[in-house]
Amino acid sequence: MNDAFAQLKIAFLKELPAINAAIQKEIDALPALVRPVAGHVMEAGGKRLRPMLTILFARALDFRGDNLHTLASSLEFLHSATLMHDDILDNADLRRGKPSAHTRFGITPTILAGDVLLALANEIVARTDIPALTSCISRAIMQTASGEIMEITAIRNAGTTRSEYIEIITGKTAYLIQSACEFGVIAAGGSERVRSAARDFGLNLGIAFQLVDDALDYTSRADTSGKPLGGDLREGKFTLPLLLYLESLPDDIRRITTLELTDVNLHPVRQDQIIAEITTQGFAEKTRDAAKSYLALASQTLAVIPECLEKNLLGAMIDFVLTRDK
Amino acid sequence: MNDAFAQLKIAFLKELPAINAAIQKEIDALPALVRPVAGHVMEAGGKRLRPMLTILFARALDFRGDNLHTLASSLEFLHSATLMHDDILDNADLRRGKPSAHTRFGITPTILAGDVLLALANEIVARTDIPALTSCISRAIMQTASGEIMEITAIRNAGTTRSEYIEIITGKTAYLIQSACEFGVIAAGGSERVRSAARDFGLNLGIAFQLVDDALDYTSRADTSGKPLGGDLREGKFTLPLLLYLESLPDDIRRITTLELTDVNLHPVRQDQIIAEITTQGFAEKTRDAAKSYLALASQTLAVIPECLEKNLLGAMIDFVLTRDK
Repeated sequence: MNDAFAQLKIAFLKELPAINAAIQKEIDALPALVRPVAGHVMEAGGKRLRPMLTILFARALDFRGDNLHTLASSLEFLHSATLMHDDILDNADLRRGKPSAHTRFGITPTILAGDVLLALANEIVARTDIPALTSCISRAIMQTASGEIMEITAIRNAGTTRSEYIEIITGKTAYLIQSACEFGVIAAGGSERVRSAARDFGLNLGIAFQLVDDALDYTSRADTSGKPLGGDLREGKFTLPLLLYLESLPDDIRRITTLELTDVNLHPVRQDQIIAEITTQGFAEKTRDAAKSYLALASQTLAVIPECLEKNLLGAMIDFVLTRDK
Repeated sequence: MNDAFAQLKIAFLKELPAINAAIQKEIDALPALVRPVAGHVMEAGGKRLRPMLTILFARALDFRGDNLHTLASSLEFLHSATLMHDDILDNADLRRGKPSAHTRFGITPTILAGDVLLALANEIVARTDIPALTSCISRAIMQTASGEIMEITAIRNAGTTRSEYIEIITGKTAYLIQSACEFGVIAAGGSERVRSAARDFGLNLGIAFQLVDDALDYTSRADTSGKPLGGDLREGKFTLPLLLYLESLPDDIRRITTLELTDVNLHPVRQDQIIAEITTQGFAEKTRDAAKSYLALASQTLAVIPECLEKNLLGAMIDFVLTRDK
C-alpha cells in the first residue's frame, strides 16, 4: 500500500462520521412512514464514495462555507434511491449483504421511499440556492434512469456490443460519480476549466468503477460482496467479462453459447459452468485491465488541480477503485 | 351553466394547445428509450388542471415573463410520474380509459420512466433559477409520496378514521394542487400574503377534488371514468363514501361488514352488493356535500386576489371540481 492510499483510508475514516451524521439528520426529518425504509437503505452503508468525491474536490479548491457534508450526502441519497428502484427491477434479494429494501418492506413502500429520497436529494440541493447544482443533479437523475432503461433493454440481447455496454455503464453509474465531482467544484466556486476537468475525472473514474464491479461479479463471493457469484450472467446481463469470453470462442461454439445465454430457462448447472470458464480463463482480470485504461485517463485530468493533500487523495481514489474487493 | 363556468371552459380550450405543445417539446427532448412510455402517459390526457391553476394565478398577478406554459407543465410531469408509480402499486390496469403504462410497457420501464419524469419536473424548475420554486416542488414530491405511503398503510385497515382519511387525501392529492397554485404566485413575484392565500385555495380545492374523485368511484362507470365501479372498495380503500356507509349501520352489522371488508378474499358478489348500497343510499352524494364545505373555504381565500378575469376563472374552478363527472 503506498502512502497516498494509506492517507485516503485515513481521510475516509475521518470524514465518515460527519457524512453519516449529516445523512442521519436528514433521515430523522423524513415523514415517519418513510423513515424505516430509508434508514434501512442508508444504514446498509456503502462506501460513501460519492460524498467523499464532493468533499475532496471542494476542499482542493479551498471551499469556504457550511454544510458541505449535507450537500455531499445529497448524491448519496440519490444513489440509494436508484438502488432501491434498481433492486426491484433486478429482483435482487440482497444489497450489501443485507436483505434489499423491497424484500424486507415490500415493493410498494420501497418504490415510494425511493421517490422520497429522490425528492430529498433535490431538496438538499435547493436549499443551497445555487442553480448550477440543481441543473447538475436533475441531469444526473435523468442520465442514470436512462442508463438503467438501456441496461434493461439489453438484457438477454445477445447482440449487445462492447460500445453499447460502455454506454450502459456510463449512464447507470458514471454520470452520478461525475456529478459528485462536479458538485464539489461548483460548491467551491471553481473555474470552468477545473469544472470540466472534474467532469472528465468523474466520468472515467465512474466507468472504471463499474468495470471493476462487473469483474467482481465473477470473482467475489456472496460473503464478501453480498451478491451471488455470476449474478449478472444469471440475470441475462452481457457485461464485459462475458463479452470478452464470447469473443474468445470459436465461431460455432460462440453461436451456440450465445443462444444458450438468451434462454431464460438455461439450466443453473450450465450457468455455473460458463461462469467458471469466464473466471478461470482470466476475463475478470482482463476487465480490470480495461478499468486501468479509464483510470489512466482520470489520472491525467488531475493536472489542472492545484497541488494539495486532496489532490493526492483524489489520485489515491484511482487505486481504491482498482483494488477494492467488494 | 353560469357565465364564469362557461368562460373557464373557453379558457381551458384556449390554453390547452399551448400547454400540450410545451409538454410535447419536453417529451421530444427525452432519451429515446423513455419517450414512448412518457409519451403514452402524457398523451393519455387528463384535465391539465394543475398547469391551468399555475397559469391562472400567474396571470391574475400580472406575470410578465417567458415560458409560463413550460413551468406550468412541470407539475403535470410530476403528477404523471406519481400516477405511473401509483398504478403499479394499485395494480391498476386502466388509467383514463387507456391501458396503464406498466400494463403496456412492463413494470420496469414504467418505474424508470416515472423517475425520469420526476427528474424532468425538477429540471424544468431548475431552469427558472428561482430557488423558491425548487423548494416548493421538492416539498410537493415528498408530501405526495408520504400521502401515498399513508394510503397504502391504511389499506384493509378497518380502523381508518375520517380524519386519517382526510390526511391521506391531503397528502396524495391536495399538496400537489396547492403547489400548482403557489407556483403561479412565485413565478409572478406575488406577495407573501397572496402566496399564503393561494396555498389555502389550492389545499382546499385539492381536498375537494379528491373527495369528488372518491364519490365518482361509486357512481361513475368504466365507460365515463375509465375505472371500474367501486374500485376503491375492491382494493380495500376506506374512502369517505364507505366510511359514511359504515357509520350508518347498526353496531352489530357494522362489525360484521367491517370484518368482511378487511378480508382480501371477500366474494365479488358481496362487494357488488355493498357498493350498490353505498350508491343507492346516497353516500356518494354526501361525500360531494363534504367537498362543498372545502370548496366554500377555497372560495373565501380568493378575496385577496385583485379583481380580474383570472380571479373569476379561479372561482369557476370551484364549480368545475364539484360538477365534473369523470
